[in-house]
Amino acid sequence: MQELVAELGDDMVVTDVERMDKYRWDRASDPNTGIPLAVVRVGSTEDVQAAVRFAAAHRIPVVPRGAGSGLSGGASAVDGCLVVSTERMTAIEVDPVTRTAVVQPGLTNAQVKAAAAAHDLWYPPDPSSYEICSIGGNIATNAGGLCCVKYGVTTDYVLGLTVVLADGTAVRLGGARLKDVAGLSLTKLFVGSEGTLGIVTEIVLRLVPTQRAAATLVATFATLGDATSTVLAITRRLRPSMLEFMDQPTINAVEDMTKMGLDRSAAAMLVVQSDEPAGHAAAECELIAGLCKENGATEVFSTDDPDEGEMFVVARRSAISAVERTGTLLLEDVGVPLPQLGALVDGIAKISADREITIAVVAHAGDGNTHPLIVFDPADQDMAARAETAYGQVMNLAIALGGTITGEHGVGRLKRPWLADYLGPDALALNLRIKDALDPHGILNPGAVF
Amino acid sequence: MQELVAELGDDMVVTDVERMDKYRWDRASDPNTGIPLAVVRVGSTEDVQAAVRFAAAHRIPVVPRGAGSGLSGGASAVDGCLVVSTERMTAIEVDPVTRTAVVQPGLTNAQVKAAAAAHDLWYPPDPSSYEICSIGGNIATNAGGLCCVKYGVTTDYVLGLTVVLADGTAVRLGGARLKDVAGLSLTKLFVGSEGTLGIVTEIVLRLVPTQRAAATLVATFATLGDATSTVLAITRRLRPSMLEFMDQPTINAVEDMTKMGLDRSAAAMLVVQSDEPAGHAAAECELIAGLCKENGATEVFSTDDPDEGEMFVVARRSAISAVERTGTLLLEDVGVPLPQLGALVDGIAKISADREITIAVVAHAGDGNTHPLIVFDPADQDMAARAETAYGQVMNLAIALGGTITGEHGVGRLKRPWLADYLGPDALALNLRIKDALDPHGILNPGAVF
Repeated sequence: MQELVAELGDDMVVTDVERMDKYRWDRASDPNTGIPLAVVRVGSTEDVQAAVRFAAAHRIPVVPRGAGSGLSGGASAVDGCLVVSTERMTAIEVDPVTRTAVVQPGLTNAQVKAAAAAHDLWYPPDPSSYEICSIGGNIATNAGGLCCVKYGVTTDYVLGLTVVLADGTAVRLGGARLKDVAGLSLTKLFVGSEGTLGIVTEIVLRLVPTQRAAATLVATFATLGDATSTVLAITRRLRPSMLEFMDQPTINAVEDMTKMGLDRSAAAMLVVQSDEPAGHAAAECELIAGLCKENGATEVFSTDDPDEGEMFVVARRSAISAVERTGTLLLEDVGVPLPQLGALVDGIAKISADREITIAVVAHAGDGNTHPLIVFDPADQDMAARAETAYGQVMNLAIALGGTITGEHGVGRLKRPWLADYLGPDALALNLRIKDALDPHGILNPGAVF
Repeated sequence: MQELVAELGDDMVVTDVERMDKYRWDRASDPNTGIPLAVVRVGSTEDVQAAVRFAAAHRIPVVPRGAGSGLSGGASAVDGCLVVSTERMTAIEVDPVTRTAVVQPGLTNAQVKAAAAAHDLWYPPDPSSYEICSIGGNIATNAGGLCCVKYGVTTDYVLGLTVVLADGTAVRLGGARLKDVAGLSLTKLFVGSEGTLGIVTEIVLRLVPTQRAAATLVATFATLGDATSTVLAITRRLRPSMLEFMDQPTINAVEDMTKMGLDRSAAAMLVVQSDEPAGHAAAECELIAGLCKENGATEVFSTDDPDEGEMFVVARRSAISAVERTGTLLLEDVGVPLPQLGALVDGIAKISADREITIAVVAHAGDGNTHPLIVFDPADQDMAARAETAYGQVMNLAIALGGTITGEHGVGRLKRPWLADYLGPDALALNLRIKDALDPHGILNPGAVF
C-alpha cells in the first residue's frame, strides 16, 4: 500500500475502515459486500492508470464506483479490493457547435443535463435517480429512464470514451464524430459492461436541442389488463415521449407520501407525455385519451401546463422511494417484448399472491421495462426467504416470456445467478471470451455480471 | 469440396469460375480481388454454420457477402476463399405491436423499408444505395445515409442478431426488447464489424412510425466557406431531417445527367429537409432560409410539396453515379467533427489542385461525413498514381483534423492501410485482441479491416 500512497498521495488513498464504509455499499445494499483494502479517490485518467497498474501487479481486485446509486450491487465492494471512486472527477466541457460534451464520470446525470441546458442543449437519458446517479455509472450500466421510449438509452448518446484497461493502458475510443465506422464498435462494447472490461475516465456525449415543453395525460384503470392493453394500443400508433405505469400498491405508496389526490382504488395508472410541437402535443394527447377510453379507462385527465404535468412525473419518479417507506425492497428490472407486458404484470401478481408478499409494480411501460418492487421485512426470516424466492421467480417469468432479467439497472452482483439462464450457454461463452481477452486475470469488478 | 457439396447440395455450392466471377467483386472494384475456391449461396443459419464449420476444419478463409454494393472492398474475394453469399436469405416478418422486424440479411434496404411501410412503420437508415444494398451489408458496415443527421445510423436500430461465429456456433444476441442490459453489448459489437467477427444470419430491427412528409430547402453559395458556415449555423440551432452538400463538380455532373436546371456556377449547394409536423416544417425551413441568407447564400428555394422536394433528394442521391460517368472513382468517406467541415472541404480542394485531379465532394454535411470522389482515368498511369496519392492525403487530412477515415462505408480492404494511423497503437491492439478472441485462426474475412 505504501507504494500506492507514495505514487498517489495520502489524500487520495483512503485506508481507514470507518472512512471506507460508505464506499462499500451501493443502493442494492448487498449484505455480502466486502471490506476493501483501500479506496482510491482518483482525480484523473492518470490516477486511474496508476491504481489499476498497482492492482494488476499485485492481482488485487478493482471495483470501480460512481455515485453508488446502483440497484444491482455492481458497485459493492469485494474483500481486499481497491475501490476506484470517480466522485472527484467532475469536469465538463460543452461544445455547442458540435453539440457534444466531454464529461468526466463523477458528475451526476443532473449536472450533465444542467451544463447542456446552459447552451440550450439536452442530454436525454433520465434514470429516475438522475439527481444522484453519476454519468459514469450510467455508462457502466447503459442506464435508461423515462424518456427512452422515444429518445433511446445511454448508449445512443455515447460517441466516445477514454477507458483504462486491466493492464493500466488508457485507450481513447471514438470521439466527437456523429458517424465513425473505422475499426470495431468498441465504444459501444464498453457501455453497459459494468466495469468488468475497463474503467471509463472520460466520455464524449452527443447532445440534442432542448426538449419542447410536454403535454401530460394521466389515466386510471379498473384492471391491470385494461392498462396494459392501452399501452399496446398507444405504442402501435404513436410515439409518446413518456409512457409510465404504476399499479395499485405503487399508487397508494405514492399517495401516502405526496397526498396529491391519486385514485387509491385504481388497479393501475398510466402517465403519458407528448413533446410534439405546439398544437400537435395536445392533439397527440387527445388521440391517447381516446385510446385510453376505448380500453376501459375509468378516468382520463390531460394538461398542457408543464408544471401541472411535472407533478405527475415527479410522483412517478418518487415511486421507488415511496414504496421503500413501506419496507425493505428487492428491486427488479425485468423487461419483455411489449405484447408480453400484460402476461408479465399478471404473472407478477400471481407470484405476489402465491408468496404472500407485496410486489408493487412500476414500469417504463412503453418499452416493456418493469420494476417490480418486492417489499419485505428483513427481521422476518420467513418473509425474507419468500421475497428471495419471488425475486428469482420474477426473473424466471421474464425469461419464459422472451424477456430480459435487467432492462437498465445492470446484472451487478444480485442478478448474476440468473444471467446464464437468460443468455444460454453459447452467448454466455461468447461474453466470457471477450471478458477473458480484455481482463485475463479477472481483476476488474470480479463477481459482477459474470 | 465434395464434403461441402455433399452436405449443402450442388445447387448451393458454385465452383464454376465463370459463374463465380460476379461474386468476386464489390462496388469498390478492388483490382487485387482474388479467386474463390467456391461460392456458397446459403439459405439458412444452418447452411452458414455448415459452410463455416467446413472452412474452420480446413482453415479456409470465409468472405461474407451481401449485395456486393460495398464501397471499401470489404466483400471482395481473397484467393482460395469460400464466399458466403446471403442473397437467397430474404425472409422478413414485421411485428407491428412490438414495432420490430425479424429480417434475413439478403433483403435490400428498400425491401425492409417497404415491408415496414406496409404496416405504417419506417426503418430510417437510408444509404444512397438503399435500392440495391443489402440489410446484411448495412449491419456489417453500420451503414449511414441521409436521414442520420436526425435519426441516427444502423446500429441505433439493431435490437438483436443471430451470428455464426468462426467455429460454426450460432449465437442469438439481444431480441425484440427496447431495453436490455443483461451481459455485454455484443449485438452492438457485431454491427460494423465487417464480417471479421462472425456472419450475421438474422437481424431484429427496431422500427418507428412513418416519417411525416418533409419540406425541402435548396440553397446555393458562391464559396465553399459560405456553405460550410451555413451548415454550422443550422446544426447549432436546429435539427433538420436532412442536411446534404454538393460542390461545383458534383452539381455539374448531376446537371449533366438530370438537366434539372441546377446552378452550374454555384461553388456549393445545400439540400435541407424538415419533417416536423404540419406548419412547423415550413417554419423550420423559413428559419433555415434566414440562416442561409445571413451566411451569403446566392439563392434559396423552398417547397413543402413532397414530390418537388424529392427531385432534389434524388439529384443528391444520384451524385455518385453522376460523377462516375466522368471517370473511374476512388471513393472517400472521411468524416470530421462539424467545426472542421470547412477546413476539410478547403483542404480537399487544395489536394485536388496540388495533384491536378478532380475531386468532387458530396457530403452528409449535417453529420460532418463527406464523400470526396476522386475521378481518374485508369489508362493514364500517371493520373492513376496521383489519384492514389490524393486518396491517402484526404484520409491523412481527416485524421489531422480529428476526423475518421470512414464514416459509414467501412474500412474494407481499401482503407486498411490507414486504420493504424487513425486508431493509434493502443486502440488498434484492443481491436486485435477482440478479433483474436473471436476468430483465433483468422478465417473470417481476412484482409478486411485488419
